[in-house]
Amino acid sequence: MSFNTFGHLFRVTTWGESHGPALGATVDGCPPGVALDAGMIQTWMDKRKPGQSRHTTQRREPDAVEILSGVYEGRTTGTPIQLMIRNVDQRSKDYGNIADTFRPGHADITYYQKYGLRDPRGGGRSSARETAARVAAGGVARAALGQLLPELQILGYMVQMGSHRIDRARFDADEIARNPFWVPDAQAAEDWAKALDAMRSDGNSVGALIEVVARGLPAGIGAPIYAKLDTALAAAMMSINAVKGVEIGAGMDAAGLTGVENADEIDMGADGPDYRSNKAGGILGGISTGQDVVVRFAVKPTSSITTPRASILRDGSPNDVVTKGRHDPCVGIRAVPVAEAMMACVLLDQVLMQRAQTGAVGPVGVIG
Amino acid sequence: MSFNTFGHLFRVTTWGESHGPALGATVDGCPPGVALDAGMIQTWMDKRKPGQSRHTTQRREPDAVEILSGVYEGRTTGTPIQLMIRNVDQRSKDYGNIADTFRPGHADITYYQKYGLRDPRGGGRSSARETAARVAAGGVARAALGQLLPELQILGYMVQMGSHRIDRARFDADEIARNPFWVPDAQAAEDWAKALDAMRSDGNSVGALIEVVARGLPAGIGAPIYAKLDTALAAAMMSINAVKGVEIGAGMDAAGLTGVENADEIDMGADGPDYRSNKAGGILGGISTGQDVVVRFAVKPTSSITTPRASILRDGSPNDVVTKGRHDPCVGIRAVPVAEAMMACVLLDQVLMQRAQTGAVGPVGVIG
Amino acid sequence: MSFNTFGHLFRVTTWGESHGPALGATVDGCPPGVALDAGMIQTWMDKRKPGQSRHTTQRREPDAVEILSGVYEGRTTGTPIQLMIRNVDQRSKDYGNIADTFRPGHADITYYQKYGLRDPRGGGRSSARETAARVAAGGVARAALGQLLPELQILGYMVQMGSHRIDRARFDADEIARNPFWVPDAQAAEDWAKALDAMRSDGNSVGALIEVVARGLPAGIGAPIYAKLDTALAAAMMSINAVKGVEIGAGMDAAGLTGVENADEIDMGADGPDYRSNKAGGILGGISTGQDVVVRFAVKPTSSITTPRASILRDGSPNDVVTKGRHDPCVGIRAVPVAEAMMACVLLDQVLMQRAQTGAVGPVGVIG
Amino acid sequence: MSFNTFGHLFRVTTWGESHGPALGATVDGCPPGVALDAGMIQTWMDKRKPGQSRHTTQRREPDAVEILSGVYEGRTTGTPIQLMIRNVDQRSKDYGNIADTFRPGHADITYYQKYGLRDPRGGGRSSARETAARVAAGGVARAALGQLLPELQILGYMVQMGSHRIDRARFDADEIARNPFWVPDAQAAEDWAKALDAMRSDGNSVGALIEVVARGLPAGIGAPIYAKLDTALAAAMMSINAVKGVEIGAGMDAAGLTGVENADEIDMGADGPDYRSNKAGGILGGISTGQDVVVRFAVKPTSSITTPRASILRDGSPNDVVTKGRHDPCVGIRAVPVAEAMMACVLLDQVLMQRAQTGAVGPVGVIG
Repeated sequence: MSFNTFGHLFRVTTWGESHGPALGATVDGCPPGVALDAGMIQTWMDKRKPGQSRHTTQRREPDAVEILSGVYEGRTTGTPIQLMIRNVDQRSKDYGNIADTFRPGHADITYYQKYGLRDPRGGGRSSARETAARVAAGGVARAALGQLLPELQILGYMVQMGSHRIDRARFDADEIARNPFWVPDAQAAEDWAKALDAMRSDGNSVGALIEVVARGLPAGIGAPIYAKLDTALAAAMMSINAVKGVEIGAGMDAAGLTGVENADEIDMGADGPDYRSNKAGGILGGISTGQDVVVRFAVKPTSSITTPRASILRDGSPNDVVTKGRHDPCVGIRAVPVAEAMMACVLLDQVLMQRAQTGAVGPVGVIG
Repeated sequence: MSFNTFGHLFRVTTWGESHGPALGATVDGCPPGVALDAGMIQTWMDKRKPGQSRHTTQRREPDAVEILSGVYEGRTTGTPIQLMIRNVDQRSKDYGNIADTFRPGHADITYYQKYGLRDPRGGGRSSARETAARVAAGGVARAALGQLLPELQILGYMVQMGSHRIDRARFDADEIARNPFWVPDAQAAEDWAKALDAMRSDGNSVGALIEVVARGLPAGIGAPIYAKLDTALAAAMMSINAVKGVEIGAGMDAAGLTGVENADEIDMGADGPDYRSNKAGGILGGISTGQDVVVRFAVKPTSSITTPRASILRDGSPNDVVTKGRHDPCVGIRAVPVAEAMMACVLLDQVLMQRAQTGAVGPVGVIG
Repeated sequence: MSFNTFGHLFRVTTWGESHGPALGATVDGCPPGVALDAGMIQTWMDKRKPGQSRHTTQRREPDAVEILSGVYEGRTTGTPIQLMIRNVDQRSKDYGNIADTFRPGHADITYYQKYGLRDPRGGGRSSARETAARVAAGGVARAALGQLLPELQILGYMVQMGSHRIDRARFDADEIARNPFWVPDAQAAEDWAKALDAMRSDGNSVGALIEVVARGLPAGIGAPIYAKLDTALAAAMMSINAVKGVEIGAGMDAAGLTGVENADEIDMGADGPDYRSNKAGGILGGISTGQDVVVRFAVKPTSSITTPRASILRDGSPNDVVTKGRHDPCVGIRAVPVAEAMMACVLLDQVLMQRAQTGAVGPVGVIG
Repeated sequence: MSFNTFGHLFRVTTWGESHGPALGATVDGCPPGVALDAGMIQTWMDKRKPGQSRHTTQRREPDAVEILSGVYEGRTTGTPIQLMIRNVDQRSKDYGNIADTFRPGHADITYYQKYGLRDPRGGGRSSARETAARVAAGGVARAALGQLLPELQILGYMVQMGSHRIDRARFDADEIARNPFWVPDAQAAEDWAKALDAMRSDGNSVGALIEVVARGLPAGIGAPIYAKLDTALAAAMMSINAVKGVEIGAGMDAAGLTGVENADEIDMGADGPDYRSNKAGGILGGISTGQDVVVRFAVKPTSSITTPRASILRDGSPNDVVTKGRHDPCVGIRAVPVAEAMMACVLLDQVLMQRAQTGAVGPVGVIG
């Protein structure tokens, strides 16, 4: 990762601001010969697109992705793939009054301090709008993974919104796509809708906990010591706007466990090692075990709220900030497809690293 | 980060195995003219060194660091600094019986699967012994930071061991160096000693929670979008052996907060912005605010325990694993100096990136 | 450099094919606060633009550059700058007949062999049209350099076209921009025009030798051992289409010199060291001396010619290739602005590396 | 390449100074399972070792390489390989008198200017002694290539020393290893010995031209646009001490050719395309054709000579430099094994990039 690029071999450079003419991703290192067209990517874009329910920003962006390079006659050519998304519903006037204002909990102030100047329109580069480009890049990664590892599935969903958690006993994967919260629990979806309406009408916002699972990743993927699979996933998720914590498997709870409890005991299965539990979240020593890879991350509540918060202006004078405009009351909702995209990019990158070093896209050492 | 290197401008490549002749770090990108000698690094090595109390492994390693290059007449020259640590107390015979064995919860199995062969002596490359090299590199980073940012302080400590948490009301920074747990609470140190003795005699081990704080880092440090300060810290901590979760500021709890609660309100202070709280952990939009940078991470319990755990051999046959040898019952203890070293490396790297892009080692935009 | 990116801190990723909808450059790492608009870049684009004289391809491309991100109110913001150039005069039908054909001396065959498929329209990614994106990126680099090192000048020119060399005694820098060959010798310009007309009407093409000089670069720029200034320049120039050799200072002739002849003797001047000669081309040990940096490179003749050349088709059958279409008879001519752009990018990148490591954009050690 | 590392996937970081305790190479990214021991590397070290004839420096260094990590039971494990070479014959007193002196044509002055301080003993980091580490790393690359591409051969030799060129009609590959000049022409070896004796007794030194050929590299290797095979080779060779020019195939002479002359016409052979000539030096569009890869580079004469040359001291006062000590009169001789090593490292790196992107270590697209 360096400045605006992530990945080692599947390298994604995102560019663009919230209210500029366009934003996008320059994708380098995609294998040649992968079937790809804009429609395949659009499917994923539409999951993240704003304004799909009353629970997300009402900005109207079609988020239509254009492929400007790297694809010929429906196949990737192995050269850079440029993915561009035009911004069409910028309303810079919404933000005019905050050019010298710093929202508490927002990057307004640090961008100004770091660079000495900033594009204040819609948060400029610090806006979560940047994540549209990640979802586009994730679409490319998914297409390539579909060819290399056809069994692989990536699934993200919310498990907590503010004080509301899902009931794991009601977990239903089919429910995820049916509600605007990407929550695998129909009852929760109903309750959360009410809770979020109340939160928004109070001029407030709320945090969230998201879980992303990769199923069907073979053992042997991950590049110790500093490009470990868990390291790469932690960096990927932490780089998403508003994320404050990342967990693998047992996560923070691992601190409270004993070695006897934490050991995922192993039996020999038909196709290889069979684990009795998955405290490890599918990763040991930074390398996949073949179990589900399980990542969770916490998203803080949106800092743009209509309840006044004490702050200062650029000249240092005091200023109570009230942020109007079209903001997500729970930015965690739209983080779900973003996290899936980051997972896809990381897995492809790691698979390519394994292929580079060993020639395999799975394990080299055979057990049994 | 790529394979065995981390950092963008201050680049550290670690090398070496637990039971090879030596291990070390190749440090590239250190500024020239920094006062440095082996003694300055040794101070930090001695914090991590095994066998300093009955609560860590009894392997006797002096962990004496040699500087083989990059320093002339007590100053860095701007060329690569090679730091070598000889292994002196390898007892490979301890491990002979586990060459074909996979400890549940350990990287034995995935290293074998990934590479098709492995150095089984003491865990080979996957051993936490690799972190000695990180501490050495951290010593170089601290020396350079001491010159660039003399006010900066980095402090790590344990806040939880298994089910035992510190009482924040008793927090005493001076206590940290006085007990073998690096815990800022004298009472906890006493209680934990008993608890860990019991755990070890039960053939068990225990997890831990560590907090690392950087005080005195100026605002403006951090390189969006993919080399953000929090992203880099998350990757750095997650790359440490046995770490399963990383938090910044409010961390995972941010999921449960509202926007009103989460806003760190701002006043104008004598030297710049003054924040009323630090939910952000000193980082907004991936850039430092000038507040304390606060990172926490969870370390799982050591997988090498003497309680039998079900596993398989390389040929797939069942095998109950009992791991003898000299293992840390709470590997989190020795993760404290490692985390401080990683923090130092990350901060220097980020400061150099800010200097590259803007010429400053702090904020460019002035407030007030 | 990795796949489609060059530079360490000023990182340029080019994308796009000859006959796709657009091509461009994603520029990351530019300092914030640099005055920049599309017009400033267009000046350099117009130097490389096709069809400006009868001596270059007659393809009509305005090469109008759009800045899609990273600039706000006429200043760079420190975030990625996306530069897009729409292709408007693609005539893919010109190329239809060579989809299965391999031009001798052209990358047609190796692109197909490497990737298993290729975009044959106009050479696809292997076309020299890719260099338009480099010139755009070079425009950004020049703007930043203009702020960091206002004295710096970069000047490229042709010194040889096929068997015709310039007469160094007639060297006139003012002449360079007055003729279509970028040649600093009015007489040569006249002679070369006739020679190239003859070559083209013979269905032939011709090679060229280009020299690029940077004047006003301070001493101390260059990053040993593997990012040396001369190493970076050699890579930059060799990466340009059709380049087969690169020289610094005395270049290949250095092989024939003695140490007595080759020593650039040093006196003390008013502003620092004063060299009596410049065999070194302004670079010692990979670091600038403060003298002119002098690079030369050879461009092979265009492989697309109308004289038949023996080749094979994809199925292995023999095929005499005659390449019609709109090709440059001397591709070296348009390499001049490309080489200037590459020089600008390399110098900015190297200056930023020096600033990262030492805080200076020039020498740290003072002489006298 | 970044500071002291080269390569993308096979990454070599060299460290160490001429007169420090040791120097070496940290090699990351080597495939696991490659048969390797110190003896295999020593074979190559011995080719570069000083003092093997009267024509090289009389410094007595055994250049014994130790493998400190990454190899277990005679096989690489896929983890970093640390190669250390102890310096044993440092005579720092030889250099004491030049601590404030700058040899014309040497990096003494620019290292001081860049960093503000330097290790003057034997040239410190700028010494050609650094190339010992490259040769060691090249030994690893050769071992890995031997497994991936058993047919591949790499051969370097001198083709010119000062004004003396070989007669290509007398080219005899078997002769190369028989004389101290690595020259494929027995008569030249005899003549050059006399010429070099005369040069040395005159207190002078001389430049050289070296050619390196890789035979048996399959088509399809090379990573456009900025990690092209020729780009990587140009950077690799230019990074060697004292190199001032690099050529591929026809090289600088390509400037004088016409398109008709330069086209390497193609027939269909038994195993694929058959080229009638090799002006391209085996590389088209930055990708190998399957022909011999041919690189040439010019090495300037050693700047450390006993004939006085005008210079200045650090305080700016004039100083006629006479360099005593044990210097190579033709540093090009020992550049031969270094260039072979660099070729090996580049080829392995490029093969791994092809494998990452396509899964193949040769061509993907089949002809015929």
